[in-house]
Amino acid sequence: MKTSPTLGNRIMAWSADLATHTDHPGMLTCAYMTPAHRAVAAQLDTWMHDCGFDEVRHDAVGNVIGLYRADPATAQPRLVSTGSHYDTVRDGGKYDGRLGILLPMAIVADLHAQGRRLPYDLEVVAFSEEEGLRFGSTFLGSSAYVGRFDNTVLDKTDADGISMRAAIVEAGLDPAQSAHCATDVSRLKHYFEVHIEQGPVLLDRGLPLGIVTAINGGVRRTLTLTGLASHAGTTPMDMRHDAACAAAEIILYVEQRCASVPGLVGTVGTLQVVNGSVNVVPGACRLSLDLRAPQDSMRDAALADIEARIEEICQRRGVRCDMEEVMRKTASACAPGEQALWAKAIAAHDAAVYELPSGAGHDAMMVGQVASMSMLFVRCGNGGISHNPLETITVEDAQLAAQVTASFLQELAATC
Amino acid sequence: MKTSPTLGNRIMAWSADLATHTDHPGMLTCAYMTPAHRAVAAQLDTWMHDCGFDEVRHDAVGNVIGLYRADPATAQPRLVSTGSHYDTVRDGGKYDGRLGILLPMAIVADLHAQGRRLPYDLEVVAFSEEEGLRFGSTFLGSSAYVGRFDNTVLDKTDADGISMRAAIVEAGLDPAQSAHCATDVSRLKHYFEVHIEQGPVLLDRGLPLGIVTAINGGVRRTLTLTGLASHAGTTPMDMRHDAACAAAEIILYVEQRCASVPGLVGTVGTLQVVNGSVNVVPGACRLSLDLRAPQDSMRDAALADIEARIEEICQRRGVRCDMEEVMRKTASACAPGEQALWAKAIAAHDAAVYELPSGAGHDAMMVGQVASMSMLFVRCGNGGISHNPLETITVEDAQLAAQVTASFLQELAATC
Repeated sequence: MKTSPTLGNRIMAWSADLATHTDHPGMLTCAYMTPAHRAVAAQLDTWMHDCGFDEVRHDAVGNVIGLYRADPATAQPRLVSTGSHYDTVRDGGKYDGRLGILLPMAIVADLHAQGRRLPYDLEVVAFSEEEGLRFGSTFLGSSAYVGRFDNTVLDKTDADGISMRAAIVEAGLDPAQSAHCATDVSRLKHYFEVHIEQGPVLLDRGLPLGIVTAINGGVRRTLTLTGLASHAGTTPMDMRHDAACAAAEIILYVEQRCASVPGLVGTVGTLQVVNGSVNVVPGACRLSLDLRAPQDSMRDAALADIEARIEEICQRRGVRCDMEEVMRKTASACAPGEQALWAKAIAAHDAAVYELPSGAGHDAMMVGQVASMSMLFVRCGNGGISHNPLETITVEDAQLAAQVTASFLQELAATC
Repeated sequence: MKTSPTLGNRIMAWSADLATHTDHPGMLTCAYMTPAHRAVAAQLDTWMHDCGFDEVRHDAVGNVIGLYRADPATAQPRLVSTGSHYDTVRDGGKYDGRLGILLPMAIVADLHAQGRRLPYDLEVVAFSEEEGLRFGSTFLGSSAYVGRFDNTVLDKTDADGISMRAAIVEAGLDPAQSAHCATDVSRLKHYFEVHIEQGPVLLDRGLPLGIVTAINGGVRRTLTLTGLASHAGTTPMDMRHDAACAAAEIILYVEQRCASVPGLVGTVGTLQVVNGSVNVVPGACRLSLDLRAPQDSMRDAALADIEARIEEICQRRGVRCDMEEVMRKTASACAPGEQALWAKAIAAHDAAVYELPSGAGHDAMMVGQVASMSMLFVRCGNGGISHNPLETITVEDAQLAAQVTASFLQELAATC
């Protein structure tokens, strides 16, 4: 199959167009069911029709799903689906999520222009919500798409007290159908997702593409260290119970422990001396801990070591540590068979085959609960920055990713 | 001289009485020129008259000064003065400052009851302001008392926009006289101050009293560390520029460096990842640094080492450090001759002679700019906590401190 040389340009132009719809002029914010969000859905619908999808439907939670039917010669066609989310974080980037919608749309447009079809139904899904910006409900779109929608999130309210249910009704959709709008999962052979890396690894290695081995599992905890506030001038160093010093030791141990294992990452992202004052020995310190690893066992081993070290530090310093687990997610392995197909497709375009885990969560985690899944990462420019207006990709990388994905679709065909 | 055995009780009872005057019911807050503050001044005035002071004056900034005249037989008597502040921090303790006013008042009452006088004029000064709670103007009372009042502070305003000038006028005093109400410094032979330790050293060593060797000099800086915010899941450990990790190394070095030198203390009292999020590698971190030492050279050597280490840490981590010095105070040595007199007085009462530096600032620093000064610390209970309602002393320690101070006054007599 010959792929158009202008897919990259089309993807870049569409991305720029979508970014003009924003909740906050001057930045790109597209929160669930805001006017900007609904405008993006309408735009995607129009473009999907223009591309030649046979059917475009909006489900009850705002997913926009383009169906490109299998070659009519195919008896009882299977379903392959791909996509990503079209909502954004506050002041986010143009490619996070959207690349994974627009890239397969461009391929379908190319297939349609050439009058070609695949031996399976292909759904390109624009998931309405993954980031959780407005209602704190992550993976909303993909959960509904695979029949795992949690009805209780409909009662969540935004900062203005508007419930998700009311927001969905206002958009002309029926929230009562949220738990009943799944695609035909019984036919779903595979889900794949193309996504900007959102990190610096490919950029650092000079590689345009990466095959994802797994979406890291993670655990998050909040720690409260309680020492004893005392006078900074009058408390000798050896009589202190300094909560910030205990925090400092923990931070450096997390860093050291995680640096010792490739693929493992650990971060203390929030840190504050509670009611701190320049002239008071810190009596309390709050911090967060975020650990992620491609295997749960790797993460759990690190966590056990960190817990043991925290206990030792606190014991020695006379500081108490209260820890609360606020999140725990299992690692999701990408399907080995499809990873091999991605490798074949990449090699066919003379690009280097490189594997890496995904440190961030993606809709593929959710769909992966009901079907095999795989992911392709595209190099992230500007040092790998994402969730930021500086997030960027090159048109050349977009073109290559589209060509590789088109080849992957052909490789998949052979397995259906 | 025989000292009454009830001075300790009197001091404790007066302290409790004064603490009933507060800006905030339920806690002890006595900020400059509030109704509670003026009520305390009026109460001290009444008690000073009751004690038998010959003269009680209120100066232009609200200091209440009781004069107990020298024995009439003394030709051209010198002046000895003592005192401390009667304002408090917010939700403070009953003894911080006030002990140094009430204890010599009790001694004068005892002298007067016995018809005894000293061979020098003795002024007991209740300084109106040292903490800086309302106007951010520390050492206000003592600066006026020694003729070093800074007129520009009259323009400072409180949280409600009321100027210090207006607050002084409202109290019936004349702010224009603030810079002209000094005592007769030319006659001032010595100033001493009795103060609760506000730290755990005496308590820890089982000692009721301590002779202060110096009021520590200090330096304060605020540090802003700027690294690079990045995705906590997707940024490998070896590609991070984590501002919180840099802060952690600095905190632990400050602790280690200061612990290596007796008398030196260093504190990072405020610490915060700026705009931190559990899933973002910290891009910026703010912290404070407070260093104190009994000699400026000791402090400066520590600061130089800390600066060098910060540079090394930041270089290695690719983090920038912006540092601003927000305070620098010279150490104030206590007069060696009077330290020896305190030692003699303490030994005369069969108590252990113990020397320690003062980590906190005191009015004695200000008066020490124009005269020799010394200080006596009284053991602080409850683990040494101060600036807190839990601050406490025992009646036995108050009694012993009063007896020792009475002896010190006798020792001083021999030198006048």
